[in-house]
Amino acid sequence: MRVLLTGGMGFIGSHTAVVLQEAGHEPVLYDNLSNADLGVAKRIAAITGKTPKFIEGDIRDEERLERALRDESIEAVIHFAGLKAVGESVVKPLEYYDNNLIGTIRLLEAMKKTGVRRLIFSSSSTVYGTPKRLPLHESDPTGEATNPYGRTKLQIEEILSDLCRAAPDWSAICLRYFNPIGAHPSGLIGEDPNGIPNNLLPYVARVANGRLPCLNVFGGDYETPDGTGVRDYIHVMDLARGHAAALPYAMSHTGWKAVNLGCGRGYSVLEVVKAFEKASGRKVPLKIGPRRAGDIAANWCDPTLAKELFGWEAKLGIDDMCRDAWRFEEKRAEELKAQSNQS
Amino acid sequence: MRVLLTGGMGFIGSHTAVVLQEAGHEPVLYDNLSNADLGVAKRIAAITGKTPKFIEGDIRDEERLERALRDESIEAVIHFAGLKAVGESVVKPLEYYDNNLIGTIRLLEAMKKTGVRRLIFSSSSTVYGTPKRLPLHESDPTGEATNPYGRTKLQIEEILSDLCRAAPDWSAICLRYFNPIGAHPSGLIGEDPNGIPNNLLPYVARVANGRLPCLNVFGGDYETPDGTGVRDYIHVMDLARGHAAALPYAMSHTGWKAVNLGCGRGYSVLEVVKAFEKASGRKVPLKIGPRRAGDIAANWCDPTLAKELFGWEAKLGIDDMCRDAWRFEEKRAEELKAQSNQS
Repeated sequence: MRVLLTGGMGFIGSHTAVVLQEAGHEPVLYDNLSNADLGVAKRIAAITGKTPKFIEGDIRDEERLERALRDESIEAVIHFAGLKAVGESVVKPLEYYDNNLIGTIRLLEAMKKTGVRRLIFSSSSTVYGTPKRLPLHESDPTGEATNPYGRTKLQIEEILSDLCRAAPDWSAICLRYFNPIGAHPSGLIGEDPNGIPNNLLPYVARVANGRLPCLNVFGGDYETPDGTGVRDYIHVMDLARGHAAALPYAMSHTGWKAVNLGCGRGYSVLEVVKAFEKASGRKVPLKIGPRRAGDIAANWCDPTLAKELFGWEAKLGIDDMCRDAWRFEEKRAEELKAQSNQS
Repeated sequence: MRVLLTGGMGFIGSHTAVVLQEAGHEPVLYDNLSNADLGVAKRIAAITGKTPKFIEGDIRDEERLERALRDESIEAVIHFAGLKAVGESVVKPLEYYDNNLIGTIRLLEAMKKTGVRRLIFSSSSTVYGTPKRLPLHESDPTGEATNPYGRTKLQIEEILSDLCRAAPDWSAICLRYFNPIGAHPSGLIGEDPNGIPNNLLPYVARVANGRLPCLNVFGGDYETPDGTGVRDYIHVMDLARGHAAALPYAMSHTGWKAVNLGCGRGYSVLEVVKAFEKASGRKVPLKIGPRRAGDIAANWCDPTLAKELFGWEAKLGIDDMCRDAWRFEEKRAEELKAQSNQS
């Protein structure tokens, strides 16, 4: 199958591209490179033996999208593209609404015009807001996202739901990611944010490697076993396989569906740090500070719907996630060293 | 004050333009004429003695908006523009998201670039969804709009709220309209939708005048005194004065605010029909049919916040609303007759 991956050069997009290529599909990567670099296509080629087709473009550029959908004979779209930093979204909400909302509406209009009717969307557990009960089920209430980033995810889910109600030939699967971490086992691709990482694992990895001095833990007084926040971490390779598993379902079913992708259990920040220290053999110095606005105490999901619908479940555990994240960090640090030696 | 009115040629926009002109302000009407005609500017001139400045443009055209804001030295924006037919929004959700969401984001970006920081937004009682209690207070929960039109209103409120939180020099007042009906007492401007009216009053008026055969009442089995739906109707001239009253508040306060604009009491469909028959001296034949999907039984508001903040309250009653709507309908029917005699 020929599948367009918007944001295909990003963290989750690139891992999904690998999994799709290995399953015999032909992913076409569409990305504006605002938070990824061209090297990712080469790294994917190094893993799979084949360079994926790449189109540089913004999702708000409807004409370019239309051309890509038509020229590449696209059958389905996996829509990863979007800004994703919670803290930044609070400071620059208009940029988030512009990129995420306008981008998605333009994408849907381009799909409508070109007859592509199958969409898998990167949603997030953030749509649940503060959980009333755990584990989180897809039928639990949404609508109280705690920041603009989360609101764009929920608003896009609503747009897709309205669209599927109006146009019964569409299929829109909203995959509600829990906390994707880890990297491809080759260490060639992984989560490599520009600047200071917003997410726990890249931060921990850089502290372990001495690129950052100390981990700041946001809150040690939550109502959790050790007082630190608890999240349902999922290995990015499991998540990528979740997309591949959702694809045949999207092709053979119409309508709107929201599906959790998580492991179904939570780990605290301190547990993750301990697992990372074990995987890396390094010490991760940390400092427990005040809570961060908008953060919740704990979330984890019930992942049974994904198993029922897609036959998918997460296979990799926290030790795998830390091992692969560490391998990626080590390779990345070596590369950066080599680069700075050259210059 | 120089105020840009997006959708300024529409029903509520044109009445607000009249009130602003009469108060000595200089409204600039920005409209793509998708649901209004050029004649409205002349009618406003006939009422006020001054033709308002008109700019033909779409709110999604950011460059044109920027130019308008800059060239006209705009100090505040009243944002009426948007698609507004509930039933159509269910059938064509993407058009609603495109017009209403993208249009608003583009407007905000144009305002940001040109330093205009004061916005009054046409919100709606629909953001409350199905009321848990009556009357509705601004602090009551939102988030369960029953159709795409309503969802765009709520999403825009959220965008504005996020924006004001991030940028403390902005002011954004969301005026939650209840059910605006009636017309300017001159009968020169009023609600004159193309095609079959979606709203009760223009429909009743056309039935009274023989332009439509019979009023279809959607539901006679609601838990209301006479079984028909109950709404908080507000005279469009009162509503227009509400905008004029909100303007000085927006200029002298920053931050986000949602404020109900309604009369604070409800009338059933049958009560409105009876009042209209009295005002027009005509019989309005009606047929009670099944409920319409997405309609609620009853809503009316507590309007005290508008009085506290703006010193505003509705002055006109249901008889005034029906009298003015009927005068407008009579004039309109005469005009149409004259036009068809000419051709």
